[in-house]
Amino acid sequence: MAGEFERIRHLRALFGTPPAGVSLGIGDDAALIEPPVDEQIVWTIDACVENVHFRRDIASWEDVGFRSFMAAASDLAAMAAHPIGALSSVSLPRDLEDADLYALARGQSLAARQVGTAVIGGNLSAGDVVTVSTTLLGRTRRAPQRDGARPGDRLALCGDVGLAAAGLRMLLRDPGCSPADDPERQALLAWRRPRARIEDGLRCGGATSLIDVSDGLAQDALHIASASGVRIDVDTSVVITPSLRVVAERLGVDARELVLSGGEDYALLGTFAETEVPEGFVVVGACGEGCGVWADGEPAGPTGHDHFR
Amino acid sequence: MAGEFERIRHLRALFGTPPAGVSLGIGDDAALIEPPVDEQIVWTIDACVENVHFRRDIASWEDVGFRSFMAAASDLAAMAAHPIGALSSVSLPRDLEDADLYALARGQSLAARQVGTAVIGGNLSAGDVVTVSTTLLGRTRRAPQRDGARPGDRLALCGDVGLAAAGLRMLLRDPGCSPADDPERQALLAWRRPRARIEDGLRCGGATSLIDVSDGLAQDALHIASASGVRIDVDTSVVITPSLRVVAERLGVDARELVLSGGEDYALLGTFAETEVPEGFVVVGACGEGCGVWADGEPAGPTGHDHFR
Repeated sequence: MAGEFERIRHLRALFGTPPAGVSLGIGDDAALIEPPVDEQIVWTIDACVENVHFRRDIASWEDVGFRSFMAAASDLAAMAAHPIGALSSVSLPRDLEDADLYALARGQSLAARQVGTAVIGGNLSAGDVVTVSTTLLGRTRRAPQRDGARPGDRLALCGDVGLAAAGLRMLLRDPGCSPADDPERQALLAWRRPRARIEDGLRCGGATSLIDVSDGLAQDALHIASASGVRIDVDTSVVITPSLRVVAERLGVDARELVLSGGEDYALLGTFAETEVPEGFVVVGACGEGCGVWADGEPAGPTGHDHFR
Repeated sequence: MAGEFERIRHLRALFGTPPAGVSLGIGDDAALIEPPVDEQIVWTIDACVENVHFRRDIASWEDVGFRSFMAAASDLAAMAAHPIGALSSVSLPRDLEDADLYALARGQSLAARQVGTAVIGGNLSAGDVVTVSTTLLGRTRRAPQRDGARPGDRLALCGDVGLAAAGLRMLLRDPGCSPADDPERQALLAWRRPRARIEDGLRCGGATSLIDVSDGLAQDALHIASASGVRIDVDTSVVITPSLRVVAERLGVDARELVLSGGEDYALLGTFAETEVPEGFVVVGACGEGCGVWADGEPAGPTGHDHFR
C-alpha cells in the first residue's frame, strides 16, 4: 500500500491542472484563489459518511466519490453560483486498498468535471470508516436565499424528486439488482449518480427564494415557508413522473410519499413571480398567506430525513 | 436529545454574529463572503477523527473542538494569512449528548475567537465516531510557499516543537494525570490547547519559505528541502527547551526524538535571508547546497507521522 505522500502525488495527477482562478492547488499548506471581481463568494461544506450516506454493498467507490461531490456542489446551484474549486478531506481505514481510494477520487473528479470545476486540494487521514468531506467555493452575482418568497409567487421545480429514494429502496432490497427497464435504470442512476444543477441554478438570479431538494420536498419547501413567512401549497400530481410511478408501484410504496420525504435527488425548488419562472422549471405549486407546507390540500409535516431521529 | 434543526439553532446562537466580510452565515444553503480587495484568498481543510487524532479518555469535548480548529487555522498561519471565517462539518454518533456537541462547539468558538474569527456555518450528520472537518478561508498579500528556500538562508522557528508529543505521551500513560509542575502543565496544554500562530505568520511576508510544524521538525523541514531543492541543517540543541528536557527525562524518552518526529505543536518554521528573520523567530539552522534534512550533522529521515504506515 502506498504511503500518504505517494497517495497525494497520485491524486494530484488524477485531479489534473487547477481551473482558472486557482493560483496554487495541491502541495502546499493551503490553496490560493484569486478573488472574483463584482461577485460574491459562495462557500459550503458537506459530509458523506460510510454506513450513514452509503454502504459498500450498494455503491461502488466511484459512486461514493461522485455522490459526495454532487451533494456538496448542489449547495452552489441553490445559490445560483459558478464553482471555483473544491477541497476534499477523506478519512479512510488503514486497510483500504489504493485502488479503492483512487476509484473514489475518479468519481470526485468526474463529478467535478461535469460541473466545470476540479478538486484542487484537501487532506487524507485515517479513520474507522470512510468519510468524505467536500468544501466548494463558488462565485455569484446574486444568490437567491430562502427568505424572499411572497404570497402569490409560483413554486417551481427543476429535476426529479423521489426517484433517488426509489433507487435506494431497490438497492436496499437487493444490493446486486439489475435494472429491468428504463424507469428502474433512471431510479438507480438518480441515487448513484445525482447531478448538481449548476446550469439551472445560474438561470435563477430572479428567484425570490431557492433551495436544493436534499431532504424531500416537504422538508425543503418548509425551509422556504418558514424563512419567508408564507404558506406553500404543492400539487404532487405534477411532481410524480411516469417513471417514478412505475418503480414505486413495483416496490409497493406510495409515489407521493417518495416525493414528499425522499431525499438526495438534488432537484432545485424555487419561488418566482408569475412571469419569471425560468426555462426548465415546472410549476408545482404556489405561495400564499399563512404558514407551513400543504400537499394536495392536506398539511405536510416535516417528514424529511433527520439524522438524529 | 434535540433534533438536527434545533441543534443548528443552538449552535448558531453559540457561534454568534459572523465577522466582517461575511454577508450570510448559518441558515441557508451556503455562506456568502465579500471578496477581499488586492489580496489573495487562502483556503484549507483539515479533519480530526476520534481514535485517530484524539480519544475521549484523554481529551474533553472542548479540547476536541479547540484542537481541531487550531490544526486547520495553522495552515493559514503558514500562508501568512488573516482568517476570514470557518465552516465546520461534524459527524457524530446518534447517542452523543447535546451537551457534548455544544462543548465541542464551545471549543471551536473559543479557538476561533483567539485567532480573530468565527465559525459561520457547516453541516451536522450521523457517524459511528466523532469526526470534525474544518475548512477556513483567509486573505493574504503574499503567501510564502515551500519552494523558495535558497542556500545561505537561515532556518528559523517560532514556538515550541516536541512539547505536544510529550503531553500526549503523558496522557497515554495516565489519562487522568495532573501536572506536577510547570513543565508538565506546559506539555499537557501544548497538546490539548495548541495555538495557530496567525500573528506570527503575518510577520513572515518576507520568508523565502514557510510551513507549520504538524508532523515533527524532520518531516516538515523535509517538505521545504524537497520543494526548494536545498539541504537543511537543524541544530536540535537550540530547539530543545528546558521544559521539554524535564518532561522528556521523566518520560524516559529522548527530547531530540520528540523534536524531530513529534507533531501537533503547530510552531512555524521558515527560511529567511540573514537580515530578514522576524521578531519572535529563533534561528535553529541553515539552508545549503544539496538535499535532505540533517540534524546535528547526521541525516534525519522522514520520521514524522504518516497515518498509513
